[in-house]
Amino acid sequence: MSVTAPKGFVASGIVAGLKASGRKDLGLLVAPEGASAAGLFTTNAFPAAPVVVSRGHVAGGQARGVIVNSGQANAGTGEDGLVDALATTEAVATALGAPADEVLVCSTGVIGPRVKLPALLEALPMAVTALSADGGPDFARAICTTDTVQKETLVQGDGFAVGGCAKGAGMIAPDLATMLAFLTMDAVVEPAALDAAVRRAVAPIFNGLTVDGCTSTNDTVLVLASGASAMTPSTEALEAALAEAAIDLVHQLQRDAEGATKALAVQVSGGAADADAHGVAKAVAESLLVKTALFGEDPNAGRLLQAVGASGASFDPSVVTIRLAGVPVVAGGVMVPFDAEACRTSLKEREVVVHVSLGVGPGEATAFGCDLGYEYVRINAEYTT
Amino acid sequence: MSVTAPKGFVASGIVAGLKASGRKDLGLLVAPEGASAAGLFTTNAFPAAPVVVSRGHVAGGQARGVIVNSGQANAGTGEDGLVDALATTEAVATALGAPADEVLVCSTGVIGPRVKLPALLEALPMAVTALSADGGPDFARAICTTDTVQKETLVQGDGFAVGGCAKGAGMIAPDLATMLAFLTMDAVVEPAALDAAVRRAVAPIFNGLTVDGCTSTNDTVLVLASGASAMTPSTEALEAALAEAAIDLVHQLQRDAEGATKALAVQVSGGAADADAHGVAKAVAESLLVKTALFGEDPNAGRLLQAVGASGASFDPSVVTIRLAGVPVVAGGVMVPFDAEACRTSLKEREVVVHVSLGVGPGEATAFGCDLGYEYVRINAEYTT
Repeated sequence: MSVTAPKGFVASGIVAGLKASGRKDLGLLVAPEGASAAGLFTTNAFPAAPVVVSRGHVAGGQARGVIVNSGQANAGTGEDGLVDALATTEAVATALGAPADEVLVCSTGVIGPRVKLPALLEALPMAVTALSADGGPDFARAICTTDTVQKETLVQGDGFAVGGCAKGAGMIAPDLATMLAFLTMDAVVEPAALDAAVRRAVAPIFNGLTVDGCTSTNDTVLVLASGASAMTPSTEALEAALAEAAIDLVHQLQRDAEGATKALAVQVSGGAADADAHGVAKAVAESLLVKTALFGEDPNAGRLLQAVGASGASFDPSVVTIRLAGVPVVAGGVMVPFDAEACRTSLKEREVVVHVSLGVGPGEATAFGCDLGYEYVRINAEYTT
Repeated sequence: MSVTAPKGFVASGIVAGLKASGRKDLGLLVAPEGASAAGLFTTNAFPAAPVVVSRGHVAGGQARGVIVNSGQANAGTGEDGLVDALATTEAVATALGAPADEVLVCSTGVIGPRVKLPALLEALPMAVTALSADGGPDFARAICTTDTVQKETLVQGDGFAVGGCAKGAGMIAPDLATMLAFLTMDAVVEPAALDAAVRRAVAPIFNGLTVDGCTSTNDTVLVLASGASAMTPSTEALEAALAEAAIDLVHQLQRDAEGATKALAVQVSGGAADADAHGVAKAVAESLLVKTALFGEDPNAGRLLQAVGASGASFDPSVVTIRLAGVPVVAGGVMVPFDAEACRTSLKEREVVVHVSLGVGPGEATAFGCDLGYEYVRINAEYTT
């Protein structure tokens, strides 16, 4: 159940003194024999320095290690931040005897301050010494910020395994940026094939996650394939295993979203293309009125109609149907009578599904969201920088 | 201070029994000698029936009257809703002796149910009888739903006057949709010139308003020019007066936003085009993390950087500057040290300004938003349909 479950990986997680809390704050994940690598990065126009560095390094398709610090996001830090991120990857490369461009780096924490580089570099040898095939859970803990639980996964493919861990969810935490996720595999996959599989099978799942609609400066998903199982899976098997691991992590992120009491899945089908379905799914999952109605366990169909209509996606309103917790509430683009009391009872569940059929084409997408209640306001308003 | 302040208009507002509360719920605004007319309508893909009807009628450029009901939004009502909206405009046209396509109609209230047409038609003669040159305030009150105050304006141009009223703000209210605004003028303006002036001077202002990011099914702005002053203003004078009236109404809407304790203006300059500046302004004003930080009076510069970066607008991150309540917090795309305590004191004000300079071109825009606190959650979660 961790990034070290697949063969060919070791990891560690230690206290380097980057977090004021004194908790683990430095994680190191290493593929001693190397790995194919692919990544997904934030679309924020102010990418953090480690995003810039890792995006460049992952383009080479090979990775020996990933260093992750929590405490400072190294975002909004300009040239200084780039210098710090590069110094970090170089130090790790030296310690591992690897080329510097085969080391990836991620940061999460407060936006603005520089990484506490002296403390990080001083602690690095300890992180290297602690590397072990059982170190996945320590790594998963070290990358956390305000997460209440660590998030890990393990999927058994046919002859290969996919492990993973993740932290955060969007910019959900008080000033502590970032969704980070790491997937490891012992399958044999060439970098180009890995990149294609990640974009096809993994990207839509993480892109469907939304806690507060706020795309952070640091979001990163890294996928490493060590090949240690000597198994070369079919594209279908590869993508299925990656998707299963990604969904598992997204569900865990969704459930640990700060202040959330419910998980919302918005499943959209019938879009002209997947992008249209994605636009509708995200619009519904991010609607403040939908999120507050969900918190209030109110079967408010008008807000669903409003959110679908305001999504900006292209569709034919006259054929739209919407189901709330399985109950049809809109048909043919028109609101229909439904048993509100029965629907209200369904909304008391911890998981709620909204299904929207656009009735146009084969496009589909799912957004993973949550409700918005008093606790979200408390966490995000009462915290002060 | 009302839609009847300019010459050439009479209005009324009465209790028709459409609202359960027994408050005024039917407003009638009439230009007995006719008026040039222009309108702005919601971009929601599920426009309410009155939006469809009024959009068609206003295309003719002439209006004799506007009938507005509160209580039911006549949205999500399909063919039945169109039949009801047309029956309403026809009844008003008959009562006024006007062509049916010179009567405009707006509705606001709960999405889903049909308008209580028998009650509306039965009360209509009373609304006609009550028409008076002092009826503007009654009209302004009749269009309200959960507004705590009615919102009116009066701007004196050079030889002409612009009056106005408005209700709501986005889909801010519990299931009670809609921002409606009405501007009247006694200036002489041809329909085409009026339409152009409204799109240039009024649309950017109302489009800059955002309370919860939820574009309702019913949003409508109608502008009528009676010509009764016999004054033909210059384009500049016309647009300046319309803009001043629009800004005044938007400020009133912003201050009455449910649950809000602060008004936020996000002024963006230096965009490649106005649309880029608009995208950034709306992204910042709609960011949950910015809205909750504002509620918490927290000078959280990282959230501003994140929101600007996530806007999707096109700009050069390396030249962006951001000022929060006048204090530079980002320069050259990098966070800079600032006096957080002084900034925190400024955030205790009722009005807060964020300025973003994109440093690229002449594009500019302002978004008008508000904070998000416990009261917003209470209103929108504890209300049940």
